[in-house]
Amino acid sequence: VRRRVEREPGELRFEPEPSELRKPLPSWKDGPVTDTIIRFVRRVTNPSGPNYVPPDERIAVFDSDGTLWCERPASALAFFVMRRLAEQAPENVDSPALRQLTQAARAGDYDMFQALDLRTLSDILVHTNAGLTSEQFTIQAHDFLGGALHPRFGIPFGQLTYRPMLELLAFLQGKEFRAFIVAGGAVEFVRASSEELYGVPQERVAGATVDYSSERLDGKILMIRTRTLLGEAGEGEAKVRSILQRLGRRPILAVGNSAGDHHLLEYTHSGVQSSLCLLIRHDDARREYAYSSGGSLEAAVRHGWTIVSMRDDFRRIFSTPNGSRREAPGR
Amino acid sequence: VRRRVEREPGELRFEPEPSELRKPLPSWKDGPVTDTIIRFVRRVTNPSGPNYVPPDERIAVFDSDGTLWCERPASALAFFVMRRLAEQAPENVDSPALRQLTQAARAGDYDMFQALDLRTLSDILVHTNAGLTSEQFTIQAHDFLGGALHPRFGIPFGQLTYRPMLELLAFLQGKEFRAFIVAGGAVEFVRASSEELYGVPQERVAGATVDYSSERLDGKILMIRTRTLLGEAGEGEAKVRSILQRLGRRPILAVGNSAGDHHLLEYTHSGVQSSLCLLIRHDDARREYAYSSGGSLEAAVRHGWTIVSMRDDFRRIFSTPNGSRREAPGR
Repeated sequence: VRRRVEREPGELRFEPEPSELRKPLPSWKDGPVTDTIIRFVRRVTNPSGPNYVPPDERIAVFDSDGTLWCERPASALAFFVMRRLAEQAPENVDSPALRQLTQAARAGDYDMFQALDLRTLSDILVHTNAGLTSEQFTIQAHDFLGGALHPRFGIPFGQLTYRPMLELLAFLQGKEFRAFIVAGGAVEFVRASSEELYGVPQERVAGATVDYSSERLDGKILMIRTRTLLGEAGEGEAKVRSILQRLGRRPILAVGNSAGDHHLLEYTHSGVQSSLCLLIRHDDARREYAYSSGGSLEAAVRHGWTIVSMRDDFRRIFSTPNGSRREAPGR
Repeated sequence: VRRRVEREPGELRFEPEPSELRKPLPSWKDGPVTDTIIRFVRRVTNPSGPNYVPPDERIAVFDSDGTLWCERPASALAFFVMRRLAEQAPENVDSPALRQLTQAARAGDYDMFQALDLRTLSDILVHTNAGLTSEQFTIQAHDFLGGALHPRFGIPFGQLTYRPMLELLAFLQGKEFRAFIVAGGAVEFVRASSEELYGVPQERVAGATVDYSSERLDGKILMIRTRTLLGEAGEGEAKVRSILQRLGRRPILAVGNSAGDHHLLEYTHSGVQSSLCLLIRHDDARREYAYSSGGSLEAAVRHGWTIVSMRDDFRRIFSTPNGSRREAPGR
């Protein structure tokens, strides 16, 4: 530990626990962003302060793709859907569009899948996994996350989570926050590994879910995935509705990266309690990707959200054991 | 502590923590039922045993009405719906059936509401609370639970939770179980107080939820309850589907009291892991109510579930501070 956390004089007495004396976000560079985060958490957890928020109201919501893990050149969900499509029996590929997509999947043409909206991607996910039990689906998702390799970094998708975000999740959990992940698409793919990847229990992943039907086999009940998706697989207001259906309560901390997250951040920011909104900026082409997301910077400035630069604020990017040394070939 | 927990010789070494040495279920009478519960928990939490279940798979599901709290002469939800209906402005009572129910509500005729199915009750709940924010609704629910009195016991509905079940929830939580409540009707009423009443976080209450719409006021976003109910407000298979949509995982422990819970218990019992199913039997007319629920006893015997007699297995019934002395008038 090279530097210690900045403290205001006299504030220490409110947080005497030794965990706070360690630097909580080691993969973040010290600066205004970590200051803002640490000050916010200190403020809402200080029981003698005017901004105190009791533990059961300390709700933090995180977007998934591009906020907690890499979403380029296509999301892990898109790659998973490709794999499952490529494995389908011909009789299961029953429409011309699906046949075209299956050909693209077999050819590894991920551009085609990157271009699909979340609703379509979620529909294909549901279609290609109908007939599985929840247990069988979880095995499929685990196999993919541990085995399929990212086309550029050559490491499993399950290791492309952002280490600074894992540290933020752990820091918040240590301060009695409950963290939720709001999936833009169907929740099941994220949920199958949320505990393993992020330490977030499955019931804290919000979004559209597949419907199940009941079957009996040898006197036992099996619940089988159908082709019906319940709820909305979408962004914007849909994400806020997802979190309210899951939780019924407004968050006080929200983290996102794209225009699809603006509504969630604005809603979080509209509460009467102290709130913190972070917008992740993908500006590191060397270590990850550089891309802009429709007006996000402008929205952040307009609303007073905190912009997190992956290039300037993250010491390390990925949680893979040698993630700090994985960079684009040729650089 | 008059009696100590029964132990098998040599088993103690697997659970050396001192909390286990205290009697975990003080409001339960010692006997085969508490033995079954404690042995089951010991079995699945023993890391060197063949039936070990890792913490993230220790899921327990509880039915709500009649399992965690009193549901007679009508459920707390029914009484809450009555109160909200009686408060409605005339222009909000826009159908003949609703006008009839409103008259019944004003007259305190709870028999009429007890007879309504969960779907109808949930629809009226949604109707009478449309236009509120989630925060406003939570205040309504809290006011009711703390202020409205049960017609027989004369104590607030929020104190009619069963003390032995609160102890069971706490015992399981101490053993790293995650407990879920599966509401037959709309979740919001249970969810508004699940943390306060049971120590169960809101996101662990499964069932149908109301949809929200977004409004802007003074540049801030408000999410307003609509009249649309998402998901099924029902029993039987609907409860299993609710838990899968919320969690995506099969429970290992299930507690219910009525025919509407059988499917959930059977599903829990159909897993490959060790499981425990408890059926609460309402057989104590003196301290609570005595009523049978369509074939529940027969189902329990057929499937090998454990029957919990409120008369014989509970020392105390309610969690109200003087709950053990509250009995039917005239006895």
